[in-house]
Amino acid sequence: MPSTTVNGRHILKQHATGYPIPGTTTVYDTSERLDLDNVALNGGVLAKLVILSIDPYLLHSVSPGSPMEQAAETCSSEAYGSDRINGMGIVKVVRSEDPAYKVGEYFTSSLSRARLTSSSDHQEYSVFSKEQLSSLQHLKPENGLPLSVYLGAAGAGARSRFIPSLFKMYQPCIPSGLTAFAGWEEFSNAKKGDTVFVSTAAGAVGSIVVQLAQNQGLKIIGSAGSDDKVKYLKQLGVDVAFNYKTTDTREALEKDGPVDIYWDNVGRDTLDAAVENATSGARVIICGAMSSYNGETTAGVKNLIHVTFKSIVLYGLSYFDIAHKHDAKFKETVIPKLADGTFKYLEDRKFGLDKAPQAILDVQNGANFGKSVIVVGDE
Amino acid sequence: MPSTTVNGRHILKQHATGYPIPGTTTVYDTSERLDLDNVALNGGVLAKLVILSIDPYLLHSVSPGSPMEQAAETCSSEAYGSDRINGMGIVKVVRSEDPAYKVGEYFTSSLSRARLTSSSDHQEYSVFSKEQLSSLQHLKPENGLPLSVYLGAAGAGARSRFIPSLFKMYQPCIPSGLTAFAGWEEFSNAKKGDTVFVSTAAGAVGSIVVQLAQNQGLKIIGSAGSDDKVKYLKQLGVDVAFNYKTTDTREALEKDGPVDIYWDNVGRDTLDAAVENATSGARVIICGAMSSYNGETTAGVKNLIHVTFKSIVLYGLSYFDIAHKHDAKFKETVIPKLADGTFKYLEDRKFGLDKAPQAILDVQNGANFGKSVIVVGDE
Repeated sequence: MPSTTVNGRHILKQHATGYPIPGTTTVYDTSERLDLDNVALNGGVLAKLVILSIDPYLLHSVSPGSPMEQAAETCSSEAYGSDRINGMGIVKVVRSEDPAYKVGEYFTSSLSRARLTSSSDHQEYSVFSKEQLSSLQHLKPENGLPLSVYLGAAGAGARSRFIPSLFKMYQPCIPSGLTAFAGWEEFSNAKKGDTVFVSTAAGAVGSIVVQLAQNQGLKIIGSAGSDDKVKYLKQLGVDVAFNYKTTDTREALEKDGPVDIYWDNVGRDTLDAAVENATSGARVIICGAMSSYNGETTAGVKNLIHVTFKSIVLYGLSYFDIAHKHDAKFKETVIPKLADGTFKYLEDRKFGLDKAPQAILDVQNGANFGKSVIVVGDE
Repeated sequence: MPSTTVNGRHILKQHATGYPIPGTTTVYDTSERLDLDNVALNGGVLAKLVILSIDPYLLHSVSPGSPMEQAAETCSSEAYGSDRINGMGIVKVVRSEDPAYKVGEYFTSSLSRARLTSSSDHQEYSVFSKEQLSSLQHLKPENGLPLSVYLGAAGAGARSRFIPSLFKMYQPCIPSGLTAFAGWEEFSNAKKGDTVFVSTAAGAVGSIVVQLAQNQGLKIIGSAGSDDKVKYLKQLGVDVAFNYKTTDTREALEKDGPVDIYWDNVGRDTLDAAVENATSGARVIICGAMSSYNGETTAGVKNLIHVTFKSIVLYGLSYFDIAHKHDAKFKETVIPKLADGTFKYLEDRKFGLDKAPQAILDVQNGANFGKSVIVVGDE
């Protein structure tokens, strides 16, 4: 009898239209067992999940009825009918039948979206078939940065450019570091003397944006959802940091604005307040819309008159359309700054894949402090 | 005893926060009399209003509590405390003490916003003091086009570029022709094979946009608020024309989209439907927000996820920031096409300044068919 190992999985048990309910709609399941030594690879690779990235966009894997999922469908034109949850992670090769993938090497994995022959999802062990190997990207940690940082502040690449046919197969991998850098480079058009407002400024993307703006000597207003996060923003050197739960965003911007650049991670009232307190010619970079991820559809700009009167431009930031243009410069300029401590990053580390259901919800509720990662296995 | 003439005026009797109520908040008043032969000019000009332009943005003169007014205030930083209603018109010089302004000549007038010594508002006769003469721009009708068309389809200029200090003094003049042309040239980035959606496509701006798109051979979807307007759009050669009151915009765009360019005149649900049915990289030109002019604040993009997933850019079109760049080409290319009948235009003509209160409301409700003008006096 071959010996088998429990292959813990984070799966979608029931569809949810709003936030997932850990333990009900999303569960950690230990019913699957795998014979690590003998499972057929068919020219592929058996890999162990080491670090899992927990990001806001994961909601569309765990709440297939959400507006986010609908938007994704218009891109992928493929129905989602699986109990699998996909995201971004770092895997380590355990067995290999392909010489390009050596045992012990690390790969960033975009994990598979489609139901292919083998599994490659939120689970401790995955077999990547020959066809699925293109979803893996070799990761060589340098500069002494911990592996997990390559899923966050130092995260880049994953795929050089957006290929619609691959998007049907693989979930988007959107590392926060290059998201911030590419969006800032592409759209901010930052000028000396500009005032920048960043919402969820202590978050994985926001905190990098803040430091990029700071690096250019701009005035920075940052909002966050707890006093601890506000304290962190002040440590980062943010000029005006406030807790949006206790300070009215509109009042804060009236006092310390107007705003030339708004990096929007939340949408809804915050976006409205920013547009109302924007200068003529202001740029709004719409990076996320946390307030509408959960199925509510009231997010957005209510008062478009400000947009027209003030020639405001709102840019939708889609990582895949711009990341490849800024990847090289990011690696050259930002990663060294992270490694030598000039740029700061924070991680919210949890241990064990059984923490995944709660971690996804925490990110939606802002209960994480720093980039959320789950350490699944030993490095 | 000098003989005096009734100087009919359209004035703001009460403030309104939503739509004006003709006869209550806005009234036609005949209590003022003027001695045309002897009124002091102090180096200025006495002019007779010939044609008055009735445009959506007038709401912020007649409903000072509306969001539109609030937006204007953030630009002008001047409190509005007058019973005067200002807009754009064409005036004819009756008496002059300035040799640069000759009796019988026509001028486009941006009318005065501030309470200066003499009046220059929605009224039959106005004295433009020496200081106010800069609000007049000489108009020499050419090409045989009726005078009124220079307030609409052939309307351009008024001021070569936005000067904030003048904005405090004078209301914006936003002629529909150059608004359409400048916005299209600046933001559309139209490419062969593109599909364009225009809301209020039969309107003063929309109908020019439609013809500019048609001139480039693009596929055009146009919506309007009546079957007559839809019929007119079909006469213009719009590929897909529909009445948004009887056809669901979302369904129409699902069927005949997706949309590469959306020219937005309305905001709210229509903007949402367009964003949901937009291609990756789509351009949205936000020219107006009729659905939020009246004090309601529910307009806007509800589903920002589409904006981010599809790298959509939303451009706020502020006439004053871009018109000067496109003025010359507009006069060279569009006005001749209007004069020779290649480009069509429709006017909704009313006679007499007493029609102004209702005309402003009609434009808000879409009850006008074509560019709304009031013929106030004989040419």
